[in-house]
Amino acid sequence: MRFSSIDALRAACLDLSFGDDDAAAAALTRQDTLTKPQGSLGRLEEMAAWLARWQGRALPKLDRVEVLVFAGSHGVTARGVSAFPPEVTAQMVANFAAGGAAINQLALAAGASLQVVPLQVEKPTADFTQASAMNAQEFLEAVSTGYDTVPSDADLICLGEMGIGNTTAAAAIAAGLFGGEGIEWVGRGTGVDDEGLRRKAAAVDAAMAHHGTTLSDPLAVAARVGGRELAAILGATLAAREHGIPVVLDGFVCTAAAAPLGKLTSGGLSHAVAGHASAEAGHRRLLDRLGLKPLLDLNMRLGEASGACLAVNILRSALACHTGMASFAEAGVSEK
Amino acid sequence: MRFSSIDALRAACLDLSFGDDDAAAAALTRQDTLTKPQGSLGRLEEMAAWLARWQGRALPKLDRVEVLVFAGSHGVTARGVSAFPPEVTAQMVANFAAGGAAINQLALAAGASLQVVPLQVEKPTADFTQASAMNAQEFLEAVSTGYDTVPSDADLICLGEMGIGNTTAAAAIAAGLFGGEGIEWVGRGTGVDDEGLRRKAAAVDAAMAHHGTTLSDPLAVAARVGGRELAAILGATLAAREHGIPVVLDGFVCTAAAAPLGKLTSGGLSHAVAGHASAEAGHRRLLDRLGLKPLLDLNMRLGEASGACLAVNILRSALACHTGMASFAEAGVSEK
Repeated sequence: MRFSSIDALRAACLDLSFGDDDAAAAALTRQDTLTKPQGSLGRLEEMAAWLARWQGRALPKLDRVEVLVFAGSHGVTARGVSAFPPEVTAQMVANFAAGGAAINQLALAAGASLQVVPLQVEKPTADFTQASAMNAQEFLEAVSTGYDTVPSDADLICLGEMGIGNTTAAAAIAAGLFGGEGIEWVGRGTGVDDEGLRRKAAAVDAAMAHHGTTLSDPLAVAARVGGRELAAILGATLAAREHGIPVVLDGFVCTAAAAPLGKLTSGGLSHAVAGHASAEAGHRRLLDRLGLKPLLDLNMRLGEASGACLAVNILRSALACHTGMASFAEAGVSEK
Repeated sequence: MRFSSIDALRAACLDLSFGDDDAAAAALTRQDTLTKPQGSLGRLEEMAAWLARWQGRALPKLDRVEVLVFAGSHGVTARGVSAFPPEVTAQMVANFAAGGAAINQLALAAGASLQVVPLQVEKPTADFTQASAMNAQEFLEAVSTGYDTVPSDADLICLGEMGIGNTTAAAAIAAGLFGGEGIEWVGRGTGVDDEGLRRKAAAVDAAMAHHGTTLSDPLAVAARVGGRELAAILGATLAAREHGIPVVLDGFVCTAAAAPLGKLTSGGLSHAVAGHASAEAGHRRLLDRLGLKPLLDLNMRLGEASGACLAVNILRSALACHTGMASFAEAGVSEK
């Protein structure tokens, strides 16, 4: 899919399916026959029904789980917003390719395939405190790349990112969509000190002042104060919705990247689950605004789809119970 | 191990190793060289060091993970404390053997072996509101069975239970060890209504009144108001400590079963992690008292080691990152 204009993209974002009610209902009915007190598997039961709704079948599958990690570079790094130098983005892309990063191990442990998609890492976006991070064409190009990366036959996708400086972009998106001062949305990212944290907040505040009322459009927020890898995540989230593929979001940056879809349309992110609550300060606040309830809470703040990928293990277990357990009748177990 | 007397068991509970400081320190040092911001894997890093400490090696293994589920029957069911009839305990043991229960699926998904150990399921303990649930010999027999069930070469054990009525026993143990009214410790278990909840609280209060000051000894609590499967969990927890095997506890009943060891000795449960926070009302309170921080919080309340087993997936991912990631030097990634 090549989105030729912001309006074309907006139209796609406003024309969403809402999943298969019958499949979700059938999954919940099935859960109530299985040999356990009703509801006792808690979120595992919810997740089985959620997979059923978005895959459109009462017995969902997780045969093909794809982890998509998008990488991009950020002009805002000139503002001293990261503890690491910007060249680390490309170095980490090489580390992903060599199999040395956390996400390589986590994808393997989750039985998932990993695809890393660098988006012009050699060409940083503009410093969004002074200009639009991307022009419309650059933004649509990144969204379209993300969209096209989603395999239409995947059973589940996990989304993640790598980009030195991108927690500041994520904070700017959150502030642009939901208001609030920079300091309410920024966190320590890869580990900035107090001075670095103040610089991040100042960058967000400067961006809000610079872009002003143009930010009333969620897609303008994504283009003006986001980044290429974040735009790609937005595109991938939309593609998954259109293909009937449930999505696991990762941490703060990934959630902020997908947030414009949730802001544009009520229920726009209902095919997505938050894999975890990040230790990055703004994440919980953002999840609350989006009505997303994280599956895990392990004090992680790495990105790379690491939290999303960990959550796949929970979904696999939920599915195994859903499809593999005996019913009360089959097992000859007395009911209440 | 056959414990011949309560005093012999107490002596074993008071003579614990505290793990391998060097292995834990080496694991943490290694974590800080890996290609991620230091600390960004949060609890995964802590868990790698915890496994290292209790296995006594900087690079721990999870080749042999054993799930041990103990089952027992409870005289207190005569008090109307469960939503299910007592015969369900034996029916579920049969369901475990046939592979139809949640734990069968969850153990498989976690790459773990499952061993189910019924403890005289045909012979309920005495109603502990009126008598000691077990006499000393019965209690020691159950503890010894649990102890001997732990394979000395396991890399990790997950503990769980099945026993209609045993959330009331767990609440009585918690009240016996830590004080408080019955109503503060009981929950809905398999799904009792408000009346059932009041009957559970009343049973706990009656037990506290009946057994009185004898409950000042944590092992007497386990014998007098516990149950066979809970005593076996206590024995297995002790055996794991002696064999250098880290333990994943399950929910409220399992935690209450192991709690006497934590109450007897400060740090007595430091080789155990709480796999999850159960939806059963008293669990969080009990975890707080024991200083245990759950890995997962998924609104589950099934028992059977289900939450412990789910947490194994998190530990496997923690270990994969710990052993498989590249260092900054190996990957040629710039540091801060």
